[in-house]
Amino acid sequence: MKKKIYFGIDLGGTTINIGPVTVDGQILEERVINTNVASGPINAIERVAQTINDLIKESYSDCEIVSVGIGVPGILDPKNGKIIEASNLPGWENFEISKELGRRINIPVFIENDANLAALGEQWLGAGAGSSDMFMFTLGSGVGGALITNGTLFSLNGVSGEFGHMIVNMEGPKCSCGRLGCVEAYFSKHGLKRITAEHLQFNPSSSLRGYEQDKITPQIISHAALQGDVVAQEIYNEASRALGIAISNIVNILGVHKIVIGGGIANAWPVFYGPLMDTIKETVFQTNVAKVKLVKAELGEKAGFIGAARYAMQNVNP
Amino acid sequence: MKKKIYFGIDLGGTTINIGPVTVDGQILEERVINTNVASGPINAIERVAQTINDLIKESYSDCEIVSVGIGVPGILDPKNGKIIEASNLPGWENFEISKELGRRINIPVFIENDANLAALGEQWLGAGAGSSDMFMFTLGSGVGGALITNGTLFSLNGVSGEFGHMIVNMEGPKCSCGRLGCVEAYFSKHGLKRITAEHLQFNPSSSLRGYEQDKITPQIISHAALQGDVVAQEIYNEASRALGIAISNIVNILGVHKIVIGGGIANAWPVFYGPLMDTIKETVFQTNVAKVKLVKAELGEKAGFIGAARYAMQNVNP
Repeated sequence: MKKKIYFGIDLGGTTINIGPVTVDGQILEERVINTNVASGPINAIERVAQTINDLIKESYSDCEIVSVGIGVPGILDPKNGKIIEASNLPGWENFEISKELGRRINIPVFIENDANLAALGEQWLGAGAGSSDMFMFTLGSGVGGALITNGTLFSLNGVSGEFGHMIVNMEGPKCSCGRLGCVEAYFSKHGLKRITAEHLQFNPSSSLRGYEQDKITPQIISHAALQGDVVAQEIYNEASRALGIAISNIVNILGVHKIVIGGGIANAWPVFYGPLMDTIKETVFQTNVAKVKLVKAELGEKAGFIGAARYAMQNVNP
Repeated sequence: MKKKIYFGIDLGGTTINIGPVTVDGQILEERVINTNVASGPINAIERVAQTINDLIKESYSDCEIVSVGIGVPGILDPKNGKIIEASNLPGWENFEISKELGRRINIPVFIENDANLAALGEQWLGAGAGSSDMFMFTLGSGVGGALITNGTLFSLNGVSGEFGHMIVNMEGPKCSCGRLGCVEAYFSKHGLKRITAEHLQFNPSSSLRGYEQDKITPQIISHAALQGDVVAQEIYNEASRALGIAISNIVNILGVHKIVIGGGIANAWPVFYGPLMDTIKETVFQTNVAKVKLVKAELGEKAGFIGAARYAMQNVNP
């Protein structure tokens, strides 16, 4: 019997990561190509197809390539393999990516939101390995969230949830989505910037005053906090409070205990783990306190294509 | 082949409703006995067993009685058929209800939280019929919530969610659970009482001033609102705002569209439907606005034992 292989693809605004993975989670290799967004979706998909066809010819011609999964940053119509909206991929709206790639490689292609697939990757081979139920928040420009139950992505009506826009403070600050008090209005690049501006108004002594306010990144704030800057720590404390409430809500309403935090801002882990865990302990039900496990994502950039391969696998063999 | 029958039982603090139901949803009859909480669980369970055995002897001796479901108001260990904590059933803690009833009737017994089973009943034969995915809020002394996916109760780790304690205002009023800003701190008997006290302080002209403050019930407030009392309407508006945010969170994060509102306070439907729907429309994602269906529960007191029979059915034939 031929060895079965699944290709995972993580389509980003800058690069596309492509890798063949076995059913037991061996990552055979990884190729990275440029997205070149401006040259359009057909051009990019042709280069992805070329890469996959080359890889197969070079190394996997004796294998059965069962299916392909792609993580796409945006709002999708997974059933029809179509991109609806993708702010980082201008010009890709309404592109039928599954069909266009599928007919160039003759392998079935399945798409899902990239943050969801990163969560699926972490659950399979990363920070969530061993937990069939898991929730992951991805902290970056925005806040993404994904629930994994029984080792598969939870979704109803083909839609995966907007966990980053859970409202935790109905009288809170305005979010990028226009509503008030979403968790994204606190623990995102944008949210941290807002909190920083508020705090610096009243704290002239903070080391953060040495930067142009518009240039202050989450990294700069976390670095300052680690250096002992009290205001920088306060900024992360405030963001952690909102994120902790959101996590407690998820634990209390859904009964999931393994919580993974990923995304660029998760690198400030030493700065926010303490206050975040304090809020969670204070606001989950007593019966859950000892059960909650809060961990940092482990797979980094690789989570996306690994989860995409896993997704391909689950769609063929549910 | 014998006709298959499932018994549903709704165990309340005052009465116990018992009824045989067929697989296609025929409710054959309903018996109501007193709980007599003070006489203890064994006494009550013996009378339940007697009722079931009598019913079978009288009318169903030619049927196959496949299984029994019981809805219990409290925190349970469904796997072991045990009551952990039940504030309306003092003295029933740690009672192994499935085992004790099962050995008296020789039929397998399954337990679940009563509000969850009422939701399952509504999804099967009530307001949610035809929607395989549904969410229900039950508004009463507290706020209960239950998610039904694919026609079955959603639960992870054997635990069904504490949706009533979703925090929607992290800087909000204190809830009975001790935390701040849960939806239960607004749209429950207790929550409405709190909001009423706040409003009456500043509104001496309200007709609600004619009552002793401690005696004002949700019914009195909704009646006053229907009579044109602006303050009474404002009280429901404020509660609806918080409930609407909670519902939008659930719609946005879980992708469920059919929302059922039940429980005693749901009878104020004409007073709060408008403002509740306004908040939902304002705070769900645009793509969901047209999809959300908000409806009132239909089965009333019968939802519990009907859902319990359904649960019995699903546990035997999953």
